[in-house]
Formats: sequence, C-alpha cells, structure tokens
Amino acid sequence: MEANGNSIPTNGVVQSLLTDLYQVTMAYSYWKNGQQNCHAVFDVFFRKNPFDGEFTIFAGLGEVLKLLRNLKYSESDIDYLKTILPANAEQEFFDYLSAADGKGIKLYSVEEGTVVFPREPLIRVEGPLPLVQLLETTILNLVNYASLVATNAARFRIAAGEDKKLLEFGLRRAQGPDGGLSASKYCYVGGFDGTSNVLAGKLFGIPVSGTHAHSYVMAHTGVSQLAHKNLSPKDRPSESVDFLTLCQKWKERVCQACRVSLGQTNDGELASYISYSLAFPNGFLALLDTYDILRSGLPNFCTVALALHELGYKAMGVRIDSGDLAYLSKEIRKVFHLISREFNVPWFADLTIVASNDIDEETLLSLNQQGHSIDAYGIGTHLVTCRKQPSLGVVFKLVQVDELARIKLSQDVAKVTIPGQKTLCRLYGKDGHALLDLMLREEEKLPEKDQRVLCRHPFE
Amino acid sequence: MEANGNSIPTNGVVQSLLTDLYQVTMAYSYWKNGQQNCHAVFDVFFRKNPFDGEFTIFAGLGEVLKLLRNLKYSESDIDYLKTILPANAEQEFFDYLSAADGKGIKLYSVEEGTVVFPREPLIRVEGPLPLVQLLETTILNLVNYASLVATNAARFRIAAGEDKKLLEFGLRRAQGPDGGLSASKYCYVGGFDGTSNVLAGKLFGIPVSGTHAHSYVMAHTGVSQLAHKNLSPKDRPSESVDFLTLCQKWKERVCQACRVSLGQTNDGELASYISYSLAFPNGFLALLDTYDILRSGLPNFCTVALALHELGYKAMGVRIDSGDLAYLSKEIRKVFHLISREFNVPWFADLTIVASNDIDEETLLSLNQQGHSIDAYGIGTHLVTCRKQPSLGVVFKLVQVDELARIKLSQDVAKVTIPGQKTLCRLYGKDGHALLDLMLREEEKLPEKDQRVLCRHPFE
Repeated sequence: MEANGNSIPTNGVVQSLLTDLYQVTMAYSYWKNGQQNCHAVFDVFFRKNPFDGEFTIFAGLGEVLKLLRNLKYSESDIDYLKTILPANAEQEFFDYLSAADGKGIKLYSVEEGTVVFPREPLIRVEGPLPLVQLLETTILNLVNYASLVATNAARFRIAAGEDKKLLEFGLRRAQGPDGGLSASKYCYVGGFDGTSNVLAGKLFGIPVSGTHAHSYVMAHTGVSQLAHKNLSPKDRPSESVDFLTLCQKWKERVCQACRVSLGQTNDGELASYISYSLAFPNGFLALLDTYDILRSGLPNFCTVALALHELGYKAMGVRIDSGDLAYLSKEIRKVFHLISREFNVPWFADLTIVASNDIDEETLLSLNQQGHSIDAYGIGTHLVTCRKQPSLGVVFKLVQVDELARIKLSQDVAKVTIPGQKTLCRLYGKDGHALLDLMLREEEKLPEKDQRVLCRHPFE
Repeated sequence: MEANGNSIPTNGVVQSLLTDLYQVTMAYSYWKNGQQNCHAVFDVFFRKNPFDGEFTIFAGLGEVLKLLRNLKYSESDIDYLKTILPANAEQEFFDYLSAADGKGIKLYSVEEGTVVFPREPLIRVEGPLPLVQLLETTILNLVNYASLVATNAARFRIAAGEDKKLLEFGLRRAQGPDGGLSASKYCYVGGFDGTSNVLAGKLFGIPVSGTHAHSYVMAHTGVSQLAHKNLSPKDRPSESVDFLTLCQKWKERVCQACRVSLGQTNDGELASYISYSLAFPNGFLALLDTYDILRSGLPNFCTVALALHELGYKAMGVRIDSGDLAYLSKEIRKVFHLISREFNVPWFADLTIVASNDIDEETLLSLNQQGHSIDAYGIGTHLVTCRKQPSLGVVFKLVQVDELARIKLSQDVAKVTIPGQKTLCRLYGKDGHALLDLMLREEEKLPEKDQRVLCRHPFE
C-alpha cells in the first residue's frame, strides 16, 4: 500500500525516543546487571475486542517493521538521555545504545489486516532483554490506534452494507496530525473506499475525494459575480457557449417541474454551482444544504446538471450534510426520477447521493432500518476518534527469558498472562472457512492437513 | 516551551497537503473564477465547551504559526495534485500554488493556553480566498485536539487538587505517534507536571519521569541472579559494601516489624528492586503490585529502602497500579509511618506514593471523597484519548469577503455564524478578575480603562 515505496517510518516522530522513560531506566538496570544477552520473548496481545464487538482487525505491522529497520539512537538522543539519567550513569551503557540496531531482534506476526481475537499473540518480539524492552511503548503506540480504527472502519462497513461507498472525512477532528493520517490509512485497511486527506493519497496511494464546502457557496453572492461564464461543449472544444444563459433557461424549467418558485432559490448558491462546474465540468457534485435543500440547493443543482448535460457533461451528484438524511435522500431521489422522466435524461435517476454530518455506526444501522436513497457516506469524527471506545488495550508482556517461561499473576484472572514462547495457527475446515485459532508451544508440532487435532480452550 | 528552538512544525506530516481534497478543488474554482485576490476573513471557534464543562483551554497556536511560516507546495506536491485534479486543470493554477507562501496571510489569535469560551473567534485568519481556504483543515487539525487535551488536563488538575503531582503516561494508548506527542505537550500546557514520553522531553523540555514496569520485576527470578551485589556508601565512594547481605539483614527486621512472614515475599521481586537500586541508588521508586502489594511488594521495598538508607541514600517512593487505590495508599502510608518510628528514619513517613491504573477524572474525585494517601498520579489512556469526549468541534467559518460580511444560515440556530470581522477583548474588574469577553466589530473603538461599556449577550 505504500505508494512512495520508502521504508522509513511515515511519521518522523516515530523514533527510538518515542518511548516511556521507564523503558530506558529498565534497560539501564538490565545492562548494569549484565542481562544484555538475556534472550527475552514478549507477546503483543489484547484482552477484549473493542466496541463490545466480536472481532478486531490487526493493523500497524508495516510501521513496526519500518521502526525496527531504522532503529538507532542518534548522537542527540544519547546527549539528551545523559541529561535525564543520573550523572553517574555509565558511559558504556550509552556506547551500547549507540551501537544498537534492530538486527538482533526477531519478530513473528500475523499479517496486517487480519481478523484477530483476544489473548492471541499478534506479534511475538524476541531479542536482547534491554533492547526489546525499549521497544514496548513505540510498538504499542503503532499497533493500538491502527488496530482500533481499522476495526471501527470494518464495523462501519458492515453497518453500511457492501454496496455503499464509504469515504473517510475525519482529518480536521482527528487526535493530531498523525491521528488524521493514520486514520486515513487504517480506515482503508478496514474497508473504506477513500479519504478526503490529500497527504494520505500522496503517501499511501489511497483514492481521495471531495468537492466543496458551505464556505464556497457562501463566498458567492450572485451570478453577477461570475468572472467567466462560457463553457465548451464536451465534444466540441473549439466552440464556446454562454453557460450562464443556458443555466438561466434550465432554471425556469426545473423550478416549474419541481414546483418551486423561482424566487426561493438562492442566487449566490447558483453562482457557486456554476463557478464550480466551469472549473470541473466532469466532476460536478454539489453540497445542497447551505440554505435550503429542497427549495434551493436541489433545484439549483438540477439546473446546472441539466445545462451541463446539454453540453455533453454528466454531473456526479449531491451531498447533504444536515437534516433528516433518510427523508431528504428519498425526496432528492424522487426529484431525480422526476427530472429524468420529464427531460428524458435516464442517468439522472441514478445520480449519487452522498450523506455526511456526524455519522456513526448507529446512524448507519438506523438509516438502513428507516430506508433511504443514499449511495455514499462521508464519515469523520466518530470514525477516526472512535468515540464509542477511543483506545484499545493492546499490551506487551514478557512471557519468557532465556529458557524460562514467565507469568504475570494478578488477583484479576483476566490479567494473568499466558507464559512461554507460543505459535499461533488458524485452522480451516474443508469448505475453506476458518474454524478456530490454535496456540501451540513453540516446540509442539504444527497440526497437519487432514489430521485430527485436539484443541482446548485455555480458560473455559 | 520549544526546547529545540526551531520553527519548523514538530511533526513532518504537518505540511500543505495535510488537508481535505475539497479545499484544493475549491481553491482551483476560486482561482479559475478570478477570485484569488478576494480578501477573505475566516473565524476559528467552537460552539460548546467539551466534557459538559464551563471552559476550554485554547492550544495549538504555536504549531499553526510554524505551519504558516513554512507554507509551501513542493514540486512533488504539485505533481501529486496534477494526478488527482482533472487532466484539463490549468497549469497557471499550479504555478500559482508553487509561488504561494504564508506571507499574504494575517492571523489574529488569543494566546496559547488561554481560557476561552464558545463562539468567540479564537483565531481570525485573513488573506487571499483560495489560500486561506486551503488552510482550513490543517489549522483545525492542529487546534482541535490540542485544545481538547489541554482542557482535559486542566480538568484532571482541578479534580486532583493543586498539591498533587500529575504525570502523563499515555503514549502507548494514544491515537497514533503524534497523538502521544501532542498529548504530552498539551497536557503540560493544561497543568500537568511531567510526562513519561522521552521524545516530548527532548523536543519540548518537559520534565520526564518513570522507573520500571511489571515486566522488570518478572524478569528476575531470585537474588542468585544478581550479577553484582556491591554498592558504595553515598559519601564514601571508594568503599564497597555487600548490598545483598545488607538487604537480607533488613528483610528480617522489616518482615518482623510489618508482621509478614519471610516466606511470603517474592524473592524475584526483591532481586529486581536490588538490581534497580544498584543502577539508581538515588532514584529508587518501586512498583509494588506485580505479586502482592502488602505482603510482598511493600516489605521488599522497605527492605531495600532501609538498606539504601544505611549507605546514605534516600529512596523516592512506590507506585501502585492495581487494586483499591484509596485503601492501599492508606495502608502503605501506615507502614511508612511504622517503619519511620521503628527504625528512626523520619523521612520514611513522607515517601512518595504514586498511583496509576486507568485513572480518569471521576476516579480522582472519588479518591478525594474516600480519603487517600496518594502524592502523585500517573495518568494515561483516558487523559490522552479524552474518552469522555474524544473530539472538539472547532470550526473554521467564512465571515467576510472583501467588504461584505457573510453568514451561514441553518435551521439549527446554534449553527448560524456571527458574520463580519471581529475583535475579541477580555474585560477585567478593578480586583484583577476577568469579568467577560467582549466581541467588537473591527471598526468599533476598543473599550477604555475606567470607562463604562455596554455589553450585550449575542443570543440571550
């Protein structure tokens, strides 16, 4: 998915020091106690699916691999660490860090985008105890939100249905610049079709989409403001037609057909649609709700779309960003059918209706229950910030040091870890459907095709 | 606050293309319609305080200024834009973008860290219509989460009380790498004392803190594992004392004083505390809850702290990360008092007790109600992801083009904008307390000191 093909972390702040201080103090203590050659095994897993759900989409692996490939402690990193560790911290430790890289670290992982379940080792990280310890926070940071938002996107996809187009519009409300960029990337992993985020398009090759905002409509006061008003017919580029006059002709016919009085439509809005069409005659998609959807936005859209049609261009559709989306989408579709029949323009009936405005999973389910005519959704805030549950509890737990398995005990049974070096495999039935995930000790034999295998639930 | 003193955006992904595609299509349409010299005024504001609260802390301005100072469209940006705009988009527009910078853009803003209220213009952005439009998404992204998390931090500060130490521990659960880095920065703005995030320390000069995790305790199986066991007394660096033997002597005395049987304490835990103390004799702060706080962690801590004391070192304290924090902190404090009296070590009674484990605002309020002996809190997930409300609705609205004020109408009165170029001033009473914020039209005279001024609420 990396369109730019490079292997450095997408975000420059993903670096060795993007970690908790206690990882550094622990690493120093391990080093000081001569444990730098202890071989540690850590499991990355979570205890509960997010959103009270039944599955999780694992994501973030690509960035973890880039982190490991580029792992180093720069001179300025070391200089800074010296200022925060005690003055008597030994120089040899800093030399050890300066020489460190990701080469001694082994990583076993399920694939990016896989459906995973609680308590399975998603990633197993092995290597020298101090170095692997230093990676904990950074790996968790890269996996936690990535998996959370990919899972959220998959849930929105399931709620919307397979045939709807889903666009991620969350950049402005995301938790920081990278929250936005990660959201665009991992929503695509989770089943979205595209994003409004231009940088995500540039960096990851994700399809980008977007047309105009309310401010664009508001910036226009009337058709007198139009600097240009001519457009060439699509198949006769040398000709030039007065597009404004053409629109004015269509406006009367549309208002009559829709039974809207000419005076009700907003002239600034019409000017903005005309101006946009002159810039993008092949990509006209209008935002209808700056003033009044049914009495201004919709007739103005139909006016410009029919004028474009007369010159051989096909409009794309409309977006609604407020009001009762189920009702409005059906009313809009009725008008599209009416125009289609009235003016004999068959494709008009199938114009795209995009809906946005604080949509969450429940909105999608409720819209489906009510019935609607929406083809595509632009989804922002709740998708990218995961309001229902804004964090996933992926943890990084020590399960083995050298040959000895380790366990974390807790009065809370759910917090007890599964000790030892483990392998995970997914068993499929004859029909190709996944049956279950099986955890094996590293030394156990993998199950063989067409052979019975005894599986026990670890807790039940 | 920028320790590194540079003026480029902290995060490399903060760049011109970190915006929604529709900003680009609108900019193109404006340009195409000859509106590149229209002077646009946009207000940045929000409609409702987050967390059902009564105030908001404005933050993110510093990063917005850096964005403007570095605004440019690189060759690769332009190349990418050409692939997503229609093939017939005019080259002159791309030339216009290539030549664009932040110089023509004026910004008026309240100061970073100011307490602000709904519907006030926090930032007023003025400049050429297409260029200012292009900035909308990026500015909102930089201000929205920054202000949200700074406000959340301020609320945690109010709930915890002025005298408690508050440490941000959220990096691993934050929404992406920058979610973590921004959280560390803006929680400090909002009233936190420090962070566990090492990179935030390096980049912003925020105090960092942290000691060790459960995995560190689990990595030790017993004192036989200790590679070194000698420590020099603090004031006699040339001497070397067998610290392990010293600890074993203190262990008996502590267990007797605490009425814990010697066999109940975990030997691996003791080894980990000894190992940590040998590395950080001046910074010993132990995590108590890997096995059993009162029967193992606490006596092991007291053992090592008293042994350190005998050599002239003063331990820092303990951290508890599970269980009933109010009860446990009081029990721990009792033991600290007991040890202090029993062994005549006055400062032992005042050792720091740090509490962590999924703490939110309600936990803090409830702990205060129950009574507790906690001195400091390590707060992560709920602070940085703002679970109560993971997004703030800061918007960027057109209020004027050239000399003409603009308004966005809406059936929802709360969504109607306040038109025109406005100035904001805060009026203070004679006692120095802020009385109210006053919005004036740009051409109105600012209120003068000691003069009466008529203020009207814009909606009530």
